[in-house]
Amino acid sequence: MAQRQTTDSPGRTVTSHDVAALAGVSQPTVSRALRGDARVSEATRQRVRDAAAKLGYIPSERGRSLSTRRTRRVGVVVDDLSNPFYLQLLDVLHRELESNDTKMVMLTSPPDELERAERLVDGSIDGAVLTTTRIGSPAPAELQRRGFPFVLLNREVDDAQADCCVADNHEGGRLVAAELARLGHRDVGAILGPAHTSTGRDREAGFRAGLAEHGLQMADTHARRGEFSFDSGYRELTAMATAGDLPSAVFCGNDVVALGALNAASANGLDVPGDLTVIGFDDIEMAGWDLIGLTTVRQDMERMARTAATLLVERIADPERPHERVCVPAELVARGTHGPPPGHS
Amino acid sequence: MAQRQTTDSPGRTVTSHDVAALAGVSQPTVSRALRGDARVSEATRQRVRDAAAKLGYIPSERGRSLSTRRTRRVGVVVDDLSNPFYLQLLDVLHRELESNDTKMVMLTSPPDELERAERLVDGSIDGAVLTTTRIGSPAPAELQRRGFPFVLLNREVDDAQADCCVADNHEGGRLVAAELARLGHRDVGAILGPAHTSTGRDREAGFRAGLAEHGLQMADTHARRGEFSFDSGYRELTAMATAGDLPSAVFCGNDVVALGALNAASANGLDVPGDLTVIGFDDIEMAGWDLIGLTTVRQDMERMARTAATLLVERIADPERPHERVCVPAELVARGTHGPPPGHS
Repeated sequence: MAQRQTTDSPGRTVTSHDVAALAGVSQPTVSRALRGDARVSEATRQRVRDAAAKLGYIPSERGRSLSTRRTRRVGVVVDDLSNPFYLQLLDVLHRELESNDTKMVMLTSPPDELERAERLVDGSIDGAVLTTTRIGSPAPAELQRRGFPFVLLNREVDDAQADCCVADNHEGGRLVAAELARLGHRDVGAILGPAHTSTGRDREAGFRAGLAEHGLQMADTHARRGEFSFDSGYRELTAMATAGDLPSAVFCGNDVVALGALNAASANGLDVPGDLTVIGFDDIEMAGWDLIGLTTVRQDMERMARTAATLLVERIADPERPHERVCVPAELVARGTHGPPPGHS
Repeated sequence: MAQRQTTDSPGRTVTSHDVAALAGVSQPTVSRALRGDARVSEATRQRVRDAAAKLGYIPSERGRSLSTRRTRRVGVVVDDLSNPFYLQLLDVLHRELESNDTKMVMLTSPPDELERAERLVDGSIDGAVLTTTRIGSPAPAELQRRGFPFVLLNREVDDAQADCCVADNHEGGRLVAAELARLGHRDVGAILGPAHTSTGRDREAGFRAGLAEHGLQMADTHARRGEFSFDSGYRELTAMATAGDLPSAVFCGNDVVALGALNAASANGLDVPGDLTVIGFDDIEMAGWDLIGLTTVRQDMERMARTAATLLVERIADPERPHERVCVPAELVARGTHGPPPGHS
């Protein structure tokens, strides 16, 4: 935001903070001075202009536009609409943004991440919440480079210079491992989410760390992996059942995967939790249904979405404030799909 | 589209068709001539300009913009994201639009319908698919008045001058009534959708018509009504169970309502279909899950969404083509939640 590389020193980036330091004023005063705000005296304005000229600082067009005529619309990027988790996030985001007099526009499925970034900065929105970013996506760095306000929600990327709000996925995985160990499970399995998502990666790492703490580990044939989808849970559980090689408990990458696993268990004549324990992650509404009663790890979606909305609103108001990372606790919600392993007294 | 009231006669609207008639050319030729398209000879161009001047015709800015620089983006308006039905529609719409080199932007929950219309015509999209329009909404007429291309999908409004694609909701309701009559149900009930939606209204009308054809009718206490929500199904079935006044079969306004009813039945210790038949409408994916197995009325969402996308693309290309209404057949899908009434041999 409000930063550009100078032509003289291509590797060097001059920010409004540099200008503020040289002119001996605050950063907001630099912004106001350069857009001709009447609250800044002519003398100060001249001092800021001189400092900006000396440093080769050019305020970005976007920076000016954001200060002066906002669209009061933000985008929410969601690529997986089949997961009710995102709908619950959207619901809260929408409410929070409305209370900040800001409309929400939903953006789905980009052909690729860079084109996505291009489309976000087209001037039709003031900022964006990204909920389904993959590890290694070039989009966050590109948005950062262009000074476009955004917040990562739910999934984060490594080394992001960005605001983000995530659940404590690692701890959630650990809690599940501890509960399985407590119940006496020795032969545990998992249907994990994709390793190219921070949620998939961190839940797996936490689960494995928790197993190790209790002297347990997963057999390779019981460490399954797939997309965060019903089909993945259904397919992988069916594969293990068909091979006659089932663990006594399966930790699923999220609740939608767990629903797939539960349905496959039913289709294969398995009693849950008598024959098999199934545990999910997210605590979507469906997990609490009478017909489902899924034991799962709850993340506080309400709090996560509210936090993300606030971070974005603050980022739009002050593009150069320090980045924040908020990690929301996870907790195990015990319902009807877990129990001791078969034959365990 | 390409029409404006003249200043001389405020009550009169001159269209490009009037200009075409007076100039003795086709309507597309009028559009081309007025935007200086090289395919139109100078002589014809002059004749069209003269006719336009004589009639006081001013081509709309939007009309020119659509012809010359489209955004290649369309909006899809969905107010009920909690219903997976809409997500399935969105999925197909997105695919179809991409294959027409058009991006989909999702728009949710407007504060009110007229503000919604205002926001749609702001120039950021070329047209819109409206999926959750209420009967009596002022939005379709307003969009029509402003010459904004749109298609009604799933729900329609009365007297709309608009393209629309809906399922045969009336016939779907009739099919359910016929099946219940065939199985020997005499004491039937329903948890209907809102009367301010064409889907709610038409499914109810078809169901009642079908019952009447078989000499059946619903007791008032068994004709329940609510939003198209899980909570509505749960609440109304619980109310009937608690009152000890259950019919032997309940037709639900949609599958989400039926899922609420199924869960309430389970919570109240009722066996489905032994004690109670439950039938839905839509055939969302969840209806086919092993753990659910909901008998329901299938509407061909794929075909409906594809049709809507095509109608919109054609409308954007030719704003003055005649309107089309496409009604897609409905069919009963028999699964595990229906059977004969209790004690019926």
